[in-house]
Amino acid sequence: MRSLLEFVRKGNDLKVTVIVTLKADVLDPEGEAIRKVSRSLGYEAVEGVRQGKFFEINIEGGTEQEAKSLAEDLAEKFLANPVIEDYRVERVEL
Amino acid sequence: MRSLLEFVRKGNDLKVTVIVTLKADVLDPEGEAIRKVSRSLGYEAVEGVRQGKFFEINIEGGTEQEAKSLAEDLAEKFLANPVIEDYRVERVEL
Repeated sequence: MRSLLEFVRKGNDLKVTVIVTLKADVLDPEGEAIRKVSRSLGYEAVEGVRQGKFFEINIEGGTEQEAKSLAEDLAEKFLANPVIEDYRVERVEL
Repeated sequence: MRSLLEFVRKGNDLKVTVIVTLKADVLDPEGEAIRKVSRSLGYEAVEGVRQGKFFEINIEGGTEQEAKSLAEDLAEKFLANPVIEDYRVERVEL
């Protein structure tokens, strides 16, 4: 019965994404390196690159609002560094 | 006049994002660590976490299709490792 239970449980899961980016006034040397490499490869239209982190979180049960609120807690506690980073939480349709 | 020129140029920029994630069958130890930490902090509803990379790319001129195609080139050439990673390109409204 395990697979059936898992199927049922998955039916109650919500998927949210957290995107963590450096604040606009914080230097992003990695993004700058990617911009330079892009241009040296001939992609001259690349004006700027900012890098960030992406997290996809499966949350069991609860409402969409609860899932987003949980993801915001995680972002504030340890996914993002609020001094230099911003984050945004989005719901993903399964 | 520099600021005016920059303003005009920015008016022609398109912003695209590239999200790079591990393929579903590739182990993600960092995501697993985040899941464990979340649960040890009391967020028992966290069923699973997958980590990835996020890139925001400003592209000068061209159409939306050209900007996306350029971003796909970058993803295939060096932003993603196609053996173990998937990527997706999205347009962002400025």
